[in-house]
Amino acid sequence: MACNSSDNTGKTIRCKAAICRKAGEPLVIEEIEVDPPKSWEVRIKILLTSLCHSDVTIWKMDIDVVAKFPRIFGHEAVGVVESVGEHVEEFKEGDTVVPVFLANCEECRDCKSPKSNLCSKFGREIFSEMPRDGTSRFKDMNGETLYHFLCVSSFSEYTVVDVAHLVNISHYHLPLDKACLLSCGVSTGVGAAWKVGDVEEGSTVAIFGLGAVGLAVAVGAKQRGATKIIGVDINAEKFEIGKRFGITDFVNPSTCEDKSVSEVIKEMTTGGADYCFECIGLASLMAEAFNSSRNGWGKTVILGVEMHGSQLTLNPYLLGMGKTITGSMFGGIKPKSDIPLLANKYLDKDLNLEGFITHEVPFKDINKAFDYLQQGKGLRCIIKMDP
Amino acid sequence: MACNSSDNTGKTIRCKAAICRKAGEPLVIEEIEVDPPKSWEVRIKILLTSLCHSDVTIWKMDIDVVAKFPRIFGHEAVGVVESVGEHVEEFKEGDTVVPVFLANCEECRDCKSPKSNLCSKFGREIFSEMPRDGTSRFKDMNGETLYHFLCVSSFSEYTVVDVAHLVNISHYHLPLDKACLLSCGVSTGVGAAWKVGDVEEGSTVAIFGLGAVGLAVAVGAKQRGATKIIGVDINAEKFEIGKRFGITDFVNPSTCEDKSVSEVIKEMTTGGADYCFECIGLASLMAEAFNSSRNGWGKTVILGVEMHGSQLTLNPYLLGMGKTITGSMFGGIKPKSDIPLLANKYLDKDLNLEGFITHEVPFKDINKAFDYLQQGKGLRCIIKMDP
Ligand SMILES: [Zn+2]
Ligand SMILES: [Zn+2]
Ligand SMILES: [Zn+2]
Ligand SMILES: [Zn+2]
Repeated sequence: MACNSSDNTGKTIRCKAAICRKAGEPLVIEEIEVDPPKSWEVRIKILLTSLCHSDVTIWKMDIDVVAKFPRIFGHEAVGVVESVGEHVEEFKEGDTVVPVFLANCEECRDCKSPKSNLCSKFGREIFSEMPRDGTSRFKDMNGETLYHFLCVSSFSEYTVVDVAHLVNISHYHLPLDKACLLSCGVSTGVGAAWKVGDVEEGSTVAIFGLGAVGLAVAVGAKQRGATKIIGVDINAEKFEIGKRFGITDFVNPSTCEDKSVSEVIKEMTTGGADYCFECIGLASLMAEAFNSSRNGWGKTVILGVEMHGSQLTLNPYLLGMGKTITGSMFGGIKPKSDIPLLANKYLDKDLNLEGFITHEVPFKDINKAFDYLQQGKGLRCIIKMDP
Repeated sequence: MACNSSDNTGKTIRCKAAICRKAGEPLVIEEIEVDPPKSWEVRIKILLTSLCHSDVTIWKMDIDVVAKFPRIFGHEAVGVVESVGEHVEEFKEGDTVVPVFLANCEECRDCKSPKSNLCSKFGREIFSEMPRDGTSRFKDMNGETLYHFLCVSSFSEYTVVDVAHLVNISHYHLPLDKACLLSCGVSTGVGAAWKVGDVEEGSTVAIFGLGAVGLAVAVGAKQRGATKIIGVDINAEKFEIGKRFGITDFVNPSTCEDKSVSEVIKEMTTGGADYCFECIGLASLMAEAFNSSRNGWGKTVILGVEMHGSQLTLNPYLLGMGKTITGSMFGGIKPKSDIPLLANKYLDKDLNLEGFITHEVPFKDINKAFDYLQQGKGLRCIIKMDP
């Protein structure tokens, strides 16, 4: 039962949220209380949210430093502004907004530079409270404080987000499900191809890992005019799926026999791919991507967050051969300026966002979204809040 | 006794060369015979040559695959064309030329791309013979074949060089010693700052290793308007020397106490240098350079060739923070187009090439140049051929 009348401004809202009380345990939908927004904060009503790999990764982790429970997960979403706190001028009640885990204050040296998207005003280490005052806006019905997640916490009917983590897309007539995609995974992939890799027309591209992010890299590379886009995945079904997103060739590491993936890719590209993207988060695969890149100008972009804390080992001689390796958060996307740009590209039919949403569940069935993702079923599962 | 009359065209020339017959042994000046140039080859009279680290590195190596003896070392030089082989149109007798270890055919995909300087027509593995037919142009007086070195072999009064490895600087009134510097080390350093790092005005730079190459990076970075140029070297004397080349701050790893060099540099630059250059060739120092670079856009350029064959270990999480690591041969310089450009910059007083030459010896004392370099005395020692 959501209290969505507009007379809650300045008051606590009681609504439903999916709470996680222990690492890896199914979420439970409970009633919670959401405080009104403080200065530079916005309270939003979530319309759609979807499940991203980072939710699942952190949800499973039982390590003190990251395991903060009880917690409200979710960071890929679209919502509408319910009320705003003091000093908020960029948003007003009724605005359609996309929350983003990455801050964009637009004032610091990084936000002002075209070369960085890592806001240096807002630390990147506060993942469990509001970024400005380090407190929570959520309580359960016993009065216990609930932790935030990545400054978004979209698995709730209402959430409070800092203005630095919110993008106003009211002026774009973007379908809500597409807006939700742009909130994290798809923007990351397209951004990595455009802003980090800066893929050139006629080039060859190799993408390691064909989940939603890897396929979004393919979409971005195809839009840039790459002529050969090689997908690498141990799931053979991904080739047929990948074709719809621009994948032209496929390498299955489990059928390479005595050759390494990089040897196979070097043969397919006469010397190595112009651009390689690692979208899984395995140090060994990052090294293989680097080895698959061309001498002279081959560029490898790391999108995956290493999942075992392993170090990356490279042959420095290959750097001397003119190869480059780089990485980024959120595909180098600056939320407030680049998400509207991606929205425009979509509306101009210059960016294909079709095919990413393979499932949809009502909020009450949110745990099914976790099942699909863990079983590798489909790409994105949209979780639809009650109207 | 050099036979420098112009009537030797098409004939073998008898002249003096400094021969190395065993890894690490002093060179011996002997009479040798130099064949006339074949098609696409030029025979040149060396005027000045200097000793570069790569000469010493390979001279010392007693590993089968690189230890080719008897051999004529030397690859940093300036000379004058004595005669040309068939199909040579770019050079004529009397032209002033700079030989370069890196080929530049100007026809292959790499030579035509602004992004690469690694000619893909000429393999980079032939270091001991002529690049086109894999044979030698040198014999000693017993008729034994002498190996070439890096397609140059400048420790000889006459040598034969492929047109792909030769730059015509006849139209530039460049002092010969400055032309010699541009043949390898100094071009590498300046090129790394300009073409690989692409150092921006107002930026911070950290240079690991203040030999001739590292100081040339400082010259290039200063020319680009870098405001803080930090030199890192275990030799404290290098700070005073470095100031003359643009170094503004100094870090001596042996006096950092309980802090790592990267921690010290991060403090000096409020978060890390915009550009880091490794000019030694140690994997551990490459990692330290990478760690010293700023999140968001920090770029690390590897110039040194790893001297122990060690692998480079990086924290992939730091790549995700927007750091980049890259490398190059010859500082990304395309010999035929960029060396004339550097010459012009010098002549326009826009590039400071003073101070690199600290010693000069006559050809007969060439082994003194090896002593100076190994003792870390000075920067470049010019070896002057008999007139
Ligand atoms: Zn995400
Ligand atoms: Zn900022
Ligand atoms: Zn050299
Ligand atoms: Zn070429």
